Amino acid sequence: MTNWNNLDTLASFKELQQSSPVDLKSVMSGEEGAGRVKKYQIPMAAGFTYDYAAKQVDDDILRSLSALANEAQLADKFKELYNGAVINTGENRLVLHHLTRGQLGDAVVADGADKRSFYVEQQKRIADFADKVHKGEIVNEAGEKFTSVVQIGIGGSDLGPRAMYIALENWAKKNGKFLMDAHFISNVDPDDASAVLAEVDVAHAIFILVSKSGTTLETLTNQSFVMDALKKDGLDPSKHMIAVTSETSPLADSPDYLAAFYMDDYIGGRYSSTSAVGGAVLSLAFGPEVFAAFLNGAAEEDKLAKEADPMKNPDMLDALIGVYERNVLGYPSTAILPYSQALSRFPAHLQQLDMESNGKSVNRFKESLSYPTGPVIFGEPGTNGQHSFYQLLHQGTDIVPLQFIGFKDSQLENDVTIQGSTSQQKLKANVAAQIIAFACGKEDEDLNKNFKGGRPSSIIVGERLTPEALGALLAHFENKVMFQGFLWNVNSFDQEGVQLGKTLAKKVLAGDMSDALKEYAGLLEI
Amino acid sequence: MTNWNNLDTLASFKELQQSSPVDLKSVMSGEEGAGRVKKYQIPMAAGFTYDYAAKQVDDDILRSLSALANEAQLADKFKELYNGAVINTGENRLVLHHLTRGQLGDAVVADGADKRSFYVEQQKRIADFADKVHKGEIVNEAGEKFTSVVQIGIGGSDLGPRAMYIALENWAKKNGKFLMDAHFISNVDPDDASAVLAEVDVAHAIFILVSKSGTTLETLTNQSFVMDALKKDGLDPSKHMIAVTSETSPLADSPDYLAAFYMDDYIGGRYSSTSAVGGAVLSLAFGPEVFAAFLNGAAEEDKLAKEADPMKNPDMLDALIGVYERNVLGYPSTAILPYSQALSRFPAHLQQLDMESNGKSVNRFKESLSYPTGPVIFGEPGTNGQHSFYQLLHQGTDIVPLQFIGFKDSQLENDVTIQGSTSQQKLKANVAAQIIAFACGKEDEDLNKNFKGGRPSSIIVGERLTPEALGALLAHFENKVMFQGFLWNVNSFDQEGVQLGKTLAKKVLAGDMSDALKEYAGLLEI
Repeated sequence: MTNWNNLDTLASFKELQQSSPVDLKSVMSGEEGAGRVKKYQIPMAAGFTYDYAAKQVDDDILRSLSALANEAQLADKFKELYNGAVINTGENRLVLHHLTRGQLGDAVVADGADKRSFYVEQQKRIADFADKVHKGEIVNEAGEKFTSVVQIGIGGSDLGPRAMYIALENWAKKNGKFLMDAHFISNVDPDDASAVLAEVDVAHAIFILVSKSGTTLETLTNQSFVMDALKKDGLDPSKHMIAVTSETSPLADSPDYLAAFYMDDYIGGRYSSTSAVGGAVLSLAFGPEVFAAFLNGAAEEDKLAKEADPMKNPDMLDALIGVYERNVLGYPSTAILPYSQALSRFPAHLQQLDMESNGKSVNRFKESLSYPTGPVIFGEPGTNGQHSFYQLLHQGTDIVPLQFIGFKDSQLENDVTIQGSTSQQKLKANVAAQIIAFACGKEDEDLNKNFKGGRPSSIIVGERLTPEALGALLAHFENKVMFQGFLWNVNSFDQEGVQLGKTLAKKVLAGDMSDALKEYAGLLEI
Repeated sequence: MTNWNNLDTLASFKELQQSSPVDLKSVMSGEEGAGRVKKYQIPMAAGFTYDYAAKQVDDDILRSLSALANEAQLADKFKELYNGAVINTGENRLVLHHLTRGQLGDAVVADGADKRSFYVEQQKRIADFADKVHKGEIVNEAGEKFTSVVQIGIGGSDLGPRAMYIALENWAKKNGKFLMDAHFISNVDPDDASAVLAEVDVAHAIFILVSKSGTTLETLTNQSFVMDALKKDGLDPSKHMIAVTSETSPLADSPDYLAAFYMDDYIGGRYSSTSAVGGAVLSLAFGPEVFAAFLNGAAEEDKLAKEADPMKNPDMLDALIGVYERNVLGYPSTAILPYSQALSRFPAHLQQLDMESNGKSVNRFKESLSYPTGPVIFGEPGTNGQHSFYQLLHQGTDIVPLQFIGFKDSQLENDVTIQGSTSQQKLKANVAAQIIAFACGKEDEDLNKNFKGGRPSSIIVGERLTPEALGALLAHFENKVMFQGFLWNVNSFDQEGVQLGKTLAKKVLAGDMSDALKEYAGLLEI
């Protein structure tokens, strides 16, 4: 049995609070710096390396972090999770997204079924459906092949799958795996659906309605929007739409859909990219084999996450260092900086994953917490960000911990040599240079040109952004967020904070408003 | 003459620090709340209203903020700026982006020319060029019309113009102003240029090379990338490329370009959307009239920004409240939340605008500052964000001030009625509901479902996102950032913090590295 305690009650955390902060400028200089880069790294799945040399840690602090991992029983808690304990206590649910990509422990039986078998069955059903679409065995009313897929979903049904699609789009084109182009409708803003419908050949499009409950307002509204558009074009919506939903939802067994694929209450929206939510759109766009490779990458990273020693577990160590930065060093935000244009929307997905999971003020027992939990997460791809908000990161008054991601090779392998180096070399030279610039700074008598340094970062280095690599990267961050939730003693798997806005919005539409709300409604001419 | 003093030396700031914080939950309830919404609003240009009822201010605090505006001589400093003082002291430059859209004060003569005339002349040259392209008087080698435009630029040459293009794309399609489709290449990642080139009909494309200095590494590299691609297709690059640069750059008078349009050192990259940097791509995409309307909107907002009384100046008041939140209430970040899918990249532009301008640790005299300056800026469109990071905004341990933006009407006017309301009504009901949810919260005995409230926001409400409206919105934030720079006594117009990384990256490529950097280079196989 594990004990769930608040972070500030743990002896090892109190010890950590007594640690002396590392002077990055000093330790990252000279031979000591080179030694740190070599020593402070852990292999990840899919050929990635996690290097944390430029974080404000040393052997003493790492020992304290290991003690914290042990005292907080991180590995045991993960084991309970993947063995089917009710980790999502607020909603009284299991947390099973790891089972969508592998069996890490015991068989998990819920709702009378083996859950691994259930997820695998849905993957097979999706693969079968996608193959039939690609072969022209499932066709539109005119007997023609479908060429496009449009996901209708919001939040976890949108950000993750969209980020994954964008991440693999060019790789798929390069490798003969680009089978259908995908589009996404998410916002209740009518301009979103209108614009997407205007650019899609709807007569040859399959629409995926994604809603676990089958009741999400935005998604049902956009479904109606799409159905109207199909009907106006003389098309039968039920021949163009599939559903991804729970077996108990009103969408599950409806003549309105060509097919329905199932998820369940044990997969949170923000953890659903490896479930049918990501599976349907990615299998249609790139083929089931690509989706399977993506799952394999995630499964390999999950296996590493089982390791109890954080010095061999990159997901756990990343989590521990993040908590050290948040709760001991007091940094309120973290930037995600992928040096890969294909990962342009990956930070937006991690923003949801992290902030929705750990942006909580109460512990698992619904008691108020007296320490900070999840930080603000933001980011854009490099080198673009270097010409934008990096000014504040380098010379602003607050310190923002940084998470770099880089790859040895580009996806498309199309490059030019200018001034003696390729674009890919320039890209990599920039990310390497930034780490040192942030850590070591540079003294200048002109204080406007002075760089204080001491700004911590880590980097995840991969070979190339393939489906396996993307899966591993996604799982790394999912597991990091999970371990941080364990450390903060919060429930990372519910989201009560999104409810009040929904309730009040319904009241506005029903005309049942407080005085101030009525004024805002008037201002907006609702 | 104005006096440039640090914020913490001002008597009115010390007074502000003594003020009692407002309990939002209380003041936004009942009739008092309704009264605040009506009272605490200021008209902006282009039909916008800035409403700050849900900020933690009251009449006393507003009086202190007015005193602060007066003591910090905000209006006088703006006047000095638009009359041509050397406000960018670090680089010894004037700051003239306001002159690209109007003459706010005296004629400004620099480099032997009247600068307003110079900017207008460039706009006319661009308009003439764009008209000829649209009429088919300027054509490709095969005598065919150009149909696409591709901007090659990074940072301010990318984020602003790209965000503006995305903001107006659907409006232009709806209103018969969509003349050419635009694309953007920014990242030195070779996959960026490769992917854009693969989706563009290069034989019918005009490429705009944007670099003030003509020396930006990423941009010149991507230019070579494009030139290679054109040559491979048997095309003459000089018949497909135009330049936007300074008159003194190597690109200014080169046979490599069909034409060159000029900006100068008095327009910072992040303030250049209303200069030739935004003008070329927007005039080609949507026509010169649309760009002119965009400038008019900005010019109207600039006029409001001249007002010395912050209670009549929405840009100044927004700036003052932001400084109150940052330096008195101690909030380290701010979220920009547009309820408009068309503004999907507007927060990324504001992230650069704000963080690169005011992410500084020294004052204008290059002395260290002992108070926080620019906050972290992030954001995504609503309602999408509601299903993502809003969890942390509602129930996280830190308070994040919010800037909502909403419109009465959609751009495309294509809508459906579901459950008694249109999508646009649902969108607006959500943003109104969020303001109250954040301000007032909702008590629940189950602390996991409890909303503390007290989370401040303001909203900018417009009629519809037109070119004029977009210009006014952009100018509002530019002016807000400028006034905040005046308050913090920083130079908002240089960016020394981006230099060190550039220098070190060059050293990496030249093989001249510190020990640690060499290890990172090895890890990345540079």
